[in-house]
Amino acid sequence: MRSGHLWAAMLLATCACAPAAGKTMSEVLEASKPADWRTLDPQNTLYIELDKGRVVMELAPQFAPRHVDNIRVMVRNQYFDGVGISRVQDNYVVQWGDPEKPLGKAKRTLPPEFTRSAAGLPFTALPDPDAYAPQTGFVAGFPAARESVTGAAWPVHCYGTVGAGRDNAVDSGGGTELYVVIGHSPRQLDRNITVVGRIVQGMELLSVLPRGPAPMGFYEKDAPRAVIKSVRVVADLPMAERVPLEVLRTDTATFADLVEARRNRRDEWYKVPAGRIDVCNVPLPVRVKR
Amino acid sequence: MRSGHLWAAMLLATCACAPAAGKTMSEVLEASKPADWRTLDPQNTLYIELDKGRVVMELAPQFAPRHVDNIRVMVRNQYFDGVGISRVQDNYVVQWGDPEKPLGKAKRTLPPEFTRSAAGLPFTALPDPDAYAPQTGFVAGFPAARESVTGAAWPVHCYGTVGAGRDNAVDSGGGTELYVVIGHSPRQLDRNITVVGRIVQGMELLSVLPRGPAPMGFYEKDAPRAVIKSVRVVADLPMAERVPLEVLRTDTATFADLVEARRNRRDEWYKVPAGRIDVCNVPLPVRVKR
Repeated sequence: MRSGHLWAAMLLATCACAPAAGKTMSEVLEASKPADWRTLDPQNTLYIELDKGRVVMELAPQFAPRHVDNIRVMVRNQYFDGVGISRVQDNYVVQWGDPEKPLGKAKRTLPPEFTRSAAGLPFTALPDPDAYAPQTGFVAGFPAARESVTGAAWPVHCYGTVGAGRDNAVDSGGGTELYVVIGHSPRQLDRNITVVGRIVQGMELLSVLPRGPAPMGFYEKDAPRAVIKSVRVVADLPMAERVPLEVLRTDTATFADLVEARRNRRDEWYKVPAGRIDVCNVPLPVRVKR
Repeated sequence: MRSGHLWAAMLLATCACAPAAGKTMSEVLEASKPADWRTLDPQNTLYIELDKGRVVMELAPQFAPRHVDNIRVMVRNQYFDGVGISRVQDNYVVQWGDPEKPLGKAKRTLPPEFTRSAAGLPFTALPDPDAYAPQTGFVAGFPAARESVTGAAWPVHCYGTVGAGRDNAVDSGGGTELYVVIGHSPRQLDRNITVVGRIVQGMELLSVLPRGPAPMGFYEKDAPRAVIKSVRVVADLPMAERVPLEVLRTDTATFADLVEARRNRRDEWYKVPAGRIDVCNVPLPVRVKR
């Protein structure tokens, strides 16, 4: 399992990454302008209400338009309301869904939306190598990857990524079972499942849920579990009930500065700046609009 | 932030990784022989007892001999007994320690043990690229990295890695404050802090702890918190109180098969085997000796 060749080749990349004078992330954010932020689109934002608080999810219509439409229909049918968490596997995922529950006009299954064409998709690339993909970066706030040979792009699985569970057949998912990544990025899932969104706020309400005792973190039948009280599309709520969340745009010079600040930490604590960054280690700041 | 060059270069590496016929991880483990496993060294194993159960930690004397010795002295002084969890930051670390507590013969601070010489260190290399290091792999069960230019090797921060917290000075840590990674691997910490061990069992007891409300996940002073009831060196316990845990060796043909089984998943569920793996996604199996 040794590869002297790769080892040598990658040293060159390391040497190109010497830290330059620059800002810390705090300084980058302080210097940001209103145009560096975007308000979450209320049609693409879900409030997932748990007993302990609210989880905010941004949908990914750029990557999974049919799944996103289907999930909105399910939400409006109140399909998710009262559904229990069925699975919490340590260092992997939290999952919920109810295969018995009527879906109304929503579809139980859809064709896969694992990848899409990279053509015409604005992509902010990272300069660093990645274990899994030829190139990683960001598409409208989503960690993503692409490759030139096939011309495909896809969202990558990072902490907080939300996907649509499926059985063995590629067209056996549709959004009725959703999972959220709560551990080290399970990048082997990339291109094998439809990513439908990401959690932008409230991850700490999901990540602390008790791990299920059965294989793969499933809870035993009838075991007590956290319940999703309701899920709502923010566009369906009165203005007074909406929280105006903004996320840092990922296609700006400010975001490039943020990435650089994290590739080469300038906080006094760091003695050996990495000079590199993994796509799943890039922070995606969120704030309430002022 | 684009690098067409790297993108193209890495495609070649991808193409060298086409899946071959082979085993699943279950099949690899079923075929393993007793010699593929090693019993944890009781001198290098700690039982960390929480209210909710036991966390088992393996110390890393290969990388941090002075810190490991110092931690053993602290444990034997019962320094950690009754210490509360002071920090739980989502997608980052759980941390504990008590700067006020007497240390007996243990040292409060030590010179850093961030890296060591790679010379003479058995290293099972992975063939895949890594965002942070020229080469990654495993040293006696620990995820690790090395580079030929400096001849240095170091443990890498994965889920479950345990390190010795420090202040800004490199020699300001010593093991009195320990942290455990509970999220996506914070690889920017590599070479900046002394890694002293890894959790081999019981991560799910740490990862569910309530996140602290103060900045960086600290709990407010006097807030209720989980407490470490006791920490013991397994060698100090009567045989009847020891659990004979074995971990899969990382320097065998069986481990190479396991890595290959995870680089190219052969379970029917996977449609696009990654052909690659990140060092922090390689499972490190643990079992009770039969």
